[in-house]
Amino acid sequence: MALLNEDRLFPAEEKVRTIARRLYAEIRNLPIVSPHGHTQAEWFARNEPFPDPVALFVQPDHYVFRMLYSQGVSLEDLEIGRTQIAEPRKVWRTFASHYHLFRGTPTRLWLDFAFQELFGLDERLSTSTADHYYETIERGLATAEFLPRALYDRFRIEVLATTDSPLDSLANHAAIRDSGWAGRIVPAFRPDPVVDPSLPDFRKNVQALGEIAGEDTATWPGYLSALAARRQFFKTLGAVSTDHGHPTAQTADLSEAEAARLFELVVAGTADAAQEELFRAQMLTEMARMSLDDGLVMQIHPGSARNHNQQIFARYGSNMGSDIPAPINFVEALRPLLARFGNEPRLTIILFTLDESTYSRELAPLAGHYPCLRLGPPWWFHDSPEGMKRFHAQVLETGGFYNTVGFNDDTRALLSIPARHDVARRMDAGFLARLVAGQRIDEDEAVELARELTYGLVKKAYRL
Amino acid sequence: MALLNEDRLFPAEEKVRTIARRLYAEIRNLPIVSPHGHTQAEWFARNEPFPDPVALFVQPDHYVFRMLYSQGVSLEDLEIGRTQIAEPRKVWRTFASHYHLFRGTPTRLWLDFAFQELFGLDERLSTSTADHYYETIERGLATAEFLPRALYDRFRIEVLATTDSPLDSLANHAAIRDSGWAGRIVPAFRPDPVVDPSLPDFRKNVQALGEIAGEDTATWPGYLSALAARRQFFKTLGAVSTDHGHPTAQTADLSEAEAARLFELVVAGTADAAQEELFRAQMLTEMARMSLDDGLVMQIHPGSARNHNQQIFARYGSNMGSDIPAPINFVEALRPLLARFGNEPRLTIILFTLDESTYSRELAPLAGHYPCLRLGPPWWFHDSPEGMKRFHAQVLETGGFYNTVGFNDDTRALLSIPARHDVARRMDAGFLARLVAGQRIDEDEAVELARELTYGLVKKAYRL
Amino acid sequence: MALLNEDRLFPAEEKVRTIARRLYAEIRNLPIVSPHGHTQAEWFARNEPFPDPVALFVQPDHYVFRMLYSQGVSLEDLEIGRTQIAEPRKVWRTFASHYHLFRGTPTRLWLDFAFQELFGLDERLSTSTADHYYETIERGLATAEFLPRALYDRFRIEVLATTDSPLDSLANHAAIRDSGWAGRIVPAFRPDPVVDPSLPDFRKNVQALGEIAGEDTATWPGYLSALAARRQFFKTLGAVSTDHGHPTAQTADLSEAEAARLFELVVAGTADAAQEELFRAQMLTEMARMSLDDGLVMQIHPGSARNHNQQIFARYGSNMGSDIPAPINFVEALRPLLARFGNEPRLTIILFTLDESTYSRELAPLAGHYPCLRLGPPWWFHDSPEGMKRFHAQVLETGGFYNTVGFNDDTRALLSIPARHDVARRMDAGFLARLVAGQRIDEDEAVELARELTYGLVKKAYRL
Repeated sequence: MALLNEDRLFPAEEKVRTIARRLYAEIRNLPIVSPHGHTQAEWFARNEPFPDPVALFVQPDHYVFRMLYSQGVSLEDLEIGRTQIAEPRKVWRTFASHYHLFRGTPTRLWLDFAFQELFGLDERLSTSTADHYYETIERGLATAEFLPRALYDRFRIEVLATTDSPLDSLANHAAIRDSGWAGRIVPAFRPDPVVDPSLPDFRKNVQALGEIAGEDTATWPGYLSALAARRQFFKTLGAVSTDHGHPTAQTADLSEAEAARLFELVVAGTADAAQEELFRAQMLTEMARMSLDDGLVMQIHPGSARNHNQQIFARYGSNMGSDIPAPINFVEALRPLLARFGNEPRLTIILFTLDESTYSRELAPLAGHYPCLRLGPPWWFHDSPEGMKRFHAQVLETGGFYNTVGFNDDTRALLSIPARHDVARRMDAGFLARLVAGQRIDEDEAVELARELTYGLVKKAYRL
Repeated sequence: MALLNEDRLFPAEEKVRTIARRLYAEIRNLPIVSPHGHTQAEWFARNEPFPDPVALFVQPDHYVFRMLYSQGVSLEDLEIGRTQIAEPRKVWRTFASHYHLFRGTPTRLWLDFAFQELFGLDERLSTSTADHYYETIERGLATAEFLPRALYDRFRIEVLATTDSPLDSLANHAAIRDSGWAGRIVPAFRPDPVVDPSLPDFRKNVQALGEIAGEDTATWPGYLSALAARRQFFKTLGAVSTDHGHPTAQTADLSEAEAARLFELVVAGTADAAQEELFRAQMLTEMARMSLDDGLVMQIHPGSARNHNQQIFARYGSNMGSDIPAPINFVEALRPLLARFGNEPRLTIILFTLDESTYSRELAPLAGHYPCLRLGPPWWFHDSPEGMKRFHAQVLETGGFYNTVGFNDDTRALLSIPARHDVARRMDAGFLARLVAGQRIDEDEAVELARELTYGLVKKAYRL
Repeated sequence: MALLNEDRLFPAEEKVRTIARRLYAEIRNLPIVSPHGHTQAEWFARNEPFPDPVALFVQPDHYVFRMLYSQGVSLEDLEIGRTQIAEPRKVWRTFASHYHLFRGTPTRLWLDFAFQELFGLDERLSTSTADHYYETIERGLATAEFLPRALYDRFRIEVLATTDSPLDSLANHAAIRDSGWAGRIVPAFRPDPVVDPSLPDFRKNVQALGEIAGEDTATWPGYLSALAARRQFFKTLGAVSTDHGHPTAQTADLSEAEAARLFELVVAGTADAAQEELFRAQMLTEMARMSLDDGLVMQIHPGSARNHNQQIFARYGSNMGSDIPAPINFVEALRPLLARFGNEPRLTIILFTLDESTYSRELAPLAGHYPCLRLGPPWWFHDSPEGMKRFHAQVLETGGFYNTVGFNDDTRALLSIPARHDVARRMDAGFLARLVAGQRIDEDEAVELARELTYGLVKKAYRL
């Protein structure tokens, strides 16, 4: 028995499946390039074993515990948010007894991949196999081959990006570099904490930014210089990109005087919600300008209503599975930035969306015209077989393959990295096989595109 | 010759179709649980024969006459809105001569099912078969096996919900109970007439509510008590749910004083449109509070712009095929209610949408997190093979199967009930077969899910 | 070797493909009816050879050069906007070396069709075949069979509509008529230049309209009379339709006095943006009223944010590939017009959208009810295999086949006409084959529908 079938996720028609198999064989073992994600540099700096199955599979994975929570399992019972898990085996059993909830979800695909490929488990997780799973995983984690650096090598990762605040010292990244280990763990510059005035700690963060950069961030020029300096610092540790998680995609192009006045308001804490939005908007354009200077690729991830569940936020904080997408408009929102820098081929801006109605209406037409724009892969809730199918069907005819950037795993769960890339490679192979079967492209083109989607486009777009 | 093929609606690939057949065989004959619809309790209370083919198939079915109307057939010629049909055979011939208009629509599937399965007709309806159809149906309707209660039994219905105003005496439901017949016809509490101040009769209805409940509905507390009392009364006749057909999904959570002041305005008829919307919003939250008290499951059906065609409304009234969906947002609209009650696992709120762009963007992420939320099946215009495919593809990966509630037939046409459930069962079987063929779930899991989608989830969600 | 496979675009399952082949055989050679497009009457009036491959395939086709531009090829290097191309072979080589960018796009399908079917080319366009292509095409263009009228006949075109300003003298259409050539090239009345006050030349255009029509267009009645007169004039040269490319679908139904006052403002140049929008809205209703008088079919093409790229617009003008769709709402926007004329079966209004989220939510429900409404085919960015699949899946179950109007090629590129119609015929055949394979319709019905989609519906809807 096995959890995974060799032909999983391929199209059902034998003729198409046969082509998909051939295409997949061409890309299956290509290195993993992971330019966007949320793993921890500390894991690789310290290279210590993960403590137990719950700390590995349940606690850090909001995909997992949000589904359990939606079906009445309390976060207390899952010991979410605890630094030390009191009864990991009990939590594991709760998880196992609810494993049927994940039927048909990508989480199931990712977990089964890790269970079988990494731990050799081949019977489905359930109440009756819970203890066997727990013990097998626990035993594995105690071995050298499950240390973070060993996993990095085993997964054939070529480069792995983390996501980091401008206030982060990047000490772990420096430690990795200094350790002599060959793994390439690079930071990504995520300035949200110092550019979003609606965050509670914004003013404190701006002050800290000044201290860390040796600039007077009470003034607009000093603030901008501090940001530019931190970007430079990130580059010294390998950063190739910035990342922007704004509520909307709004951009602005204020005069320097207007921007300086606005900065005064937000840094004084007297800006209203509209002014805060305008400030974030202006900062996207400032970041684009800096990218033209320093070459960092810009990623915009807008449209998530963060911490929708106020009780959960009050009790557990952020990233607890209660961020919910909202409708978004790119066409008007990006106008100011694009009017200023849209025709610069030296600039790369990668757009992501949680609102799939923008795929064919806005994103594909925008990316199929503006030289600076590229489209990120299906993101978050849409990083799934059906989500990828919609992306393929709705984006590529107008945007073209070459205005996309391959796959991002975007994960917090280290063990899900090869599983997620494998799903993407299989879905790409299946989609391309369908184009070949329908005689829309030739098979030699499909092979070339499969390699581009897996390896070429991501390296080029992220300048890796 | 036959109207129906044994393999209809199954996927075309032989490998997938074979799995679909096996799954369908497991659920084909399960009882029908129909927790939401618009059939009439009076039919079962009186148990009298339906008068003629037109009164059965054309007059009550806005799916049918809206399509004829869109192609230039006048409602006069169809004798819509007449209590006594003058020339039923002439209307039937008009319908028959336009039957090609329904090609590719679910209406065609439902009608052909009834024609063949209930009346044994096996040649397509057309001008040349119109009279044969008319006479065959007329002959059938005169027999005992076409009496409402006989149809209920023949359809293997286990429970059938109607939809009723708080002002309804439920005399027909009581008569059914007192008749000793074993059929389970339960009311659903639809308070729109007494909670939507934009309706012309709202103030009259609120007054009538007071009289029927023995409460002073001129005051906010009296009004709330009257509603609670009517809910209790509905429960004594088997009600398990409420239903809310608001223009939007907006909710509110006002202080008691604010709510009381707002109630004064609406009951005085001096509220403006925004205040009317706020009142409806507040009432959803009040209904959720009452549901926590009395256990009634809450259904929210928002987003229909009712009576879009003003001339048709003026002449024929409501439910005449001119309700048109509008864009809707759940994420912000539900925030106040969810902030108050969203984490209550004892509460069940079932959401429906006519705006499919909310499936993957809003509804699946919300239902995959909040313990009180469940997703209703594809509704109204989307209760169709392709509509179901979109629901499957866009909801289940993020929301999970277990946050859905099986099928609702939502019909006004008694004879369409088995047809509609059969379409849903076939589409479920086909979708699950595709997951099995793609090795995303195992076949034993698919069998379990097929049974859940047909029978288990609806019983659990509606507490039946 | 060949660029085109006989089975291209058909479904992959052998059973479905076999049905698709049969259906396609029924429609493959039906005449082309092209009721909406942007070819030039002048070509057919003068009947002169096209100058060179670049002027034919690259320069006029924004689908082509927008994709090249998005990947960093400058419009200068493509000599876009030049009346005389200086180095056509160099431009062609640039195009050829980027031909891989079109993989998976409809542009590739259209170009390959023209390359093989018209020029006999059978090896893929690339750097190495660029010169061979150039010379083959150049040689072809010099022959009589590539003159515009010869192509019209060779394509089996039955009628071809251009799109024309009310200010156009239609001299080319008259010249064609007077030439004795049997080809039917008809104008379509596109009044945007004289009804959209936001256009820079609006006031000048209104004045010119008065001069050309011999009316005093400084007054509201004179302006309306001038429009009615031009419509009549267009009809004398074969026009059957009007076309309206408004930013939104907004309509209005002002009193005559209100409309006259609003006209005064816009013609004085003192209207603000909201008044300009209201004027466009009112003009849609005025046009509907005139259509009831003169029988012209009305086409509404809303929802494109024109000239989004301001630098490109400033340098190259309109239709340069930087029009980007925007979200749109039909349900509220069309209410005023439909309240006035929606129940007139003598009126035909054909709706197009770039916002696919309106297909199932708004357009199909509207068209499945209002007798005056019909739905145009997938438009512009959605005129593609996947775009057609979405239209089929999202529109037809609710709107029905008979509320659609067959295919529009909407092209500026003469040689793409047969290619585009061929794609539509293949996709229709594939979709209908799928309905037959799923036993949702019988094959004799599919044959009838295939013929309707290809020929019958367009003739009827456009009154051709």
